[in-house]
Amino acid sequence: MSAEIGLIGLGTMGAALALNIAEKGHDIAVFNRTPSKTRDFMADVGELAPRLTPTETLEDFVQAIATPRTIILMVLAGEPVDEQIALLEPLLDADDLVIDAGNANFHDTNRRMRTLKQPFLGIGVSGGEEGARHGPAIMGGGPKSLWNRVEPVLHAISAKHKDEPCADWMGEEGAGHFVKAVHNGIEYADMQLIAEAYGIMRDGLGLDAQAIADTFAKWNDGPLRSYLIEISGIVAGTTDAATNGPILDVILDSAGQKGTGRWTAIEAQHLGAPIPVIEAAVAARNMSARKDERGRMEAIFGAAPQGFAPAEMPLEGLEQALICGKILCYDQGFRLIAAASDQFGWSLDGARIARVWREGCIIRSDMLDDMAAALSDSGVETLMAAPVFADHLKSTQAALRQVIATAVSHGAPVPALSSALSYLDTMRTHRGTANMIQGQRDYFGRHGFVRLDDGQKDQHGPWAG
Amino acid sequence: MSAEIGLIGLGTMGAALALNIAEKGHDIAVFNRTPSKTRDFMADVGELAPRLTPTETLEDFVQAIATPRTIILMVLAGEPVDEQIALLEPLLDADDLVIDAGNANFHDTNRRMRTLKQPFLGIGVSGGEEGARHGPAIMGGGPKSLWNRVEPVLHAISAKHKDEPCADWMGEEGAGHFVKAVHNGIEYADMQLIAEAYGIMRDGLGLDAQAIADTFAKWNDGPLRSYLIEISGIVAGTTDAATNGPILDVILDSAGQKGTGRWTAIEAQHLGAPIPVIEAAVAARNMSARKDERGRMEAIFGAAPQGFAPAEMPLEGLEQALICGKILCYDQGFRLIAAASDQFGWSLDGARIARVWREGCIIRSDMLDDMAAALSDSGVETLMAAPVFADHLKSTQAALRQVIATAVSHGAPVPALSSALSYLDTMRTHRGTANMIQGQRDYFGRHGFVRLDDGQKDQHGPWAG
Repeated sequence: MSAEIGLIGLGTMGAALALNIAEKGHDIAVFNRTPSKTRDFMADVGELAPRLTPTETLEDFVQAIATPRTIILMVLAGEPVDEQIALLEPLLDADDLVIDAGNANFHDTNRRMRTLKQPFLGIGVSGGEEGARHGPAIMGGGPKSLWNRVEPVLHAISAKHKDEPCADWMGEEGAGHFVKAVHNGIEYADMQLIAEAYGIMRDGLGLDAQAIADTFAKWNDGPLRSYLIEISGIVAGTTDAATNGPILDVILDSAGQKGTGRWTAIEAQHLGAPIPVIEAAVAARNMSARKDERGRMEAIFGAAPQGFAPAEMPLEGLEQALICGKILCYDQGFRLIAAASDQFGWSLDGARIARVWREGCIIRSDMLDDMAAALSDSGVETLMAAPVFADHLKSTQAALRQVIATAVSHGAPVPALSSALSYLDTMRTHRGTANMIQGQRDYFGRHGFVRLDDGQKDQHGPWAG
Repeated sequence: MSAEIGLIGLGTMGAALALNIAEKGHDIAVFNRTPSKTRDFMADVGELAPRLTPTETLEDFVQAIATPRTIILMVLAGEPVDEQIALLEPLLDADDLVIDAGNANFHDTNRRMRTLKQPFLGIGVSGGEEGARHGPAIMGGGPKSLWNRVEPVLHAISAKHKDEPCADWMGEEGAGHFVKAVHNGIEYADMQLIAEAYGIMRDGLGLDAQAIADTFAKWNDGPLRSYLIEISGIVAGTTDAATNGPILDVILDSAGQKGTGRWTAIEAQHLGAPIPVIEAAVAARNMSARKDERGRMEAIFGAAPQGFAPAEMPLEGLEQALICGKILCYDQGFRLIAAASDQFGWSLDGARIARVWREGCIIRSDMLDDMAAALSDSGVETLMAAPVFADHLKSTQAALRQVIATAVSHGAPVPALSSALSYLDTMRTHRGTANMIQGQRDYFGRHGFVRLDDGQKDQHGPWAG
């Protein structure tokens, strides 16, 4: 009996993906370095058992798969992937395909693609365990012909947006893992924007957890409809069994991070692509970790005098502000993608990426469907410039301004919302203030400026030597 | 005749430094890879000629220096430094000291220090050509005993703050170059804060260039007294000969960058140390480069309706806002330095660094003297927590809030000022909003949270499977 496909790595995500593949009718061989994990996995597969072939040696694993083989790796990113590939290669035929479906740094994927003889793809899989099990978003990278080989099974297991699979080839080399990293950066930003709105409701407006839950649920019926808004409402409305109070009240406000937000911020710096909202989100997580210090600072500066009069901060205005901030955040994300595409010579397509993100992944939302449509217009340079989104920004910006003005006057921290707005105000201002910076740079460093009137470069001011 | 010291690299900075060294009474041998540059240099040295020994081969150069030798490299950062060292090493004795005084990435300095057999120091030199010629700030890194060897001549040539040399050992390995990079990041941020104030004056208050110049000159008599405020006033008050109007009006608002701001932002990401004001400054430079696009965006969104009533934005308030933003920016910078010190096992001392920065370098200011004093108090954790600066923040924060609230209401971009304030409001809030983020992360990824009541870790919410 020959399996159609093989999977190595039966951690949470690997196990879920294997079951998904089996459930969609594909015979799959599985292997894990520690065999006990494989046995535990098989003990729980229930009626899917006939489609699963557990193996306990790499040789048996390889033998169990029909040629030309496709093997998915779901092992820890980094060296373990290189190690696993090195163990596999001697056992494989020349046209066997290896797929790294873990959270690889795309630079590593680029490297592997250039140095490995084995056909290789790097795919980003989003949606957590739930997504992996029932329908993730899948972002593929590497040679298109190799993607075509494996597309049918990936389409079968992926999330669907109205029957369209949320699984697609992103571009060459590490493009799939890069797009996954950008997804994760945007995820940080979406979550931070929501957290700021939550803070305004909790501390500024004094709403209790249930009222906050109801607000998120209401927003989930509107333009902000999305997985993250939905679960924010669920989390806000959840009770803690031990205290019988809102669970949010017993969760320490110190956010962990796995590092992908940081990677995205670093990559954006290399590319010179500004992503202020993602940067604000990463910084906010770093600052949240300094819980004790924040306590000491509050003792020095006093707690923020946050209470707003409801008229100062109507919930409809807060919703509009979130919409505005979200659009600006995504504009930055799509520009980052375009910058990487230029730099690395990939064929990244914002509309294609938005379509893949519509379902399955953590940032899935109704708005992504509109974004996909807007970005499909080849005349459109960026999301902000697309007529539908330019109109959304024009109609919601007043609320964003109002929310920020009220928040800063009362000490409510709004780093992501503020950075979204200053991005809009910078990008919509033709005559900016970097002329002062160029003047200073020329004064102290003789760096030279361009004349505005005739475009002459390398001009210098008449500063004393 | 034996020179006391040697210098390779007669570009702008190298030439200036060589003349400085000669002028302070030290005999110096010089070498440049292209001999014509050495001859051009010597043609202009005037009365300093007796102290300068020009050489046209590396052998002659090395021979001209008394042993044990000290050789300063002022060549282009990166591979040229490695190449120059490789050419030098065969000609040197075991105790000859090589100093990289260029803008090296500190990781390269770390590497060189670990792999070179030759005694090696990495020093950051700030102050531009003027500083190099008449008194730079000097930040040394590497073995302290090697710094001690060269300290006398560096003290002789450096800037002075009331007779104290602004030249000091920062710490081990690449610490000197790291501190220089942070200096440059803060320089970007100082300049961006000034540019935002300039924009508010020009577009919001409608002040003409001379009124703006007068305002900066007035601020230079107060707590903001600094080289950058001083030259901002000079630049604003300078006339362009061709148009007979303000030079600022003919300078294209598209800022260049050499990359150190980006490096600092990347390093801060690796260290998990938030530096939002520097990030905002780097992003603003990136966005300024998109001049044409900003024109297109203005056509879509309309120019910002900026005009403020003077009562909304009194100049004294703008000054206070700048003071507040500056302090918060520097707090972030000193925390970044502390994070690097911990991570790399260096002995970085914020007070020592602030003292070196008081004169000679681009960010030199009166406030740095106060910062040095505040950071000298071993009980002080951070700048914000130092009583003098906590008081400054408390008394100026209202103005910062007012400026931001007015600016955002009128479309004036204030990315650096806003990010400074949200940093303050985040760090002074004990009960933040990352509990929402932790709740979301546990919901979709089972990442676990810590309970606020009893501190138990790896807790999970009662979310459906």
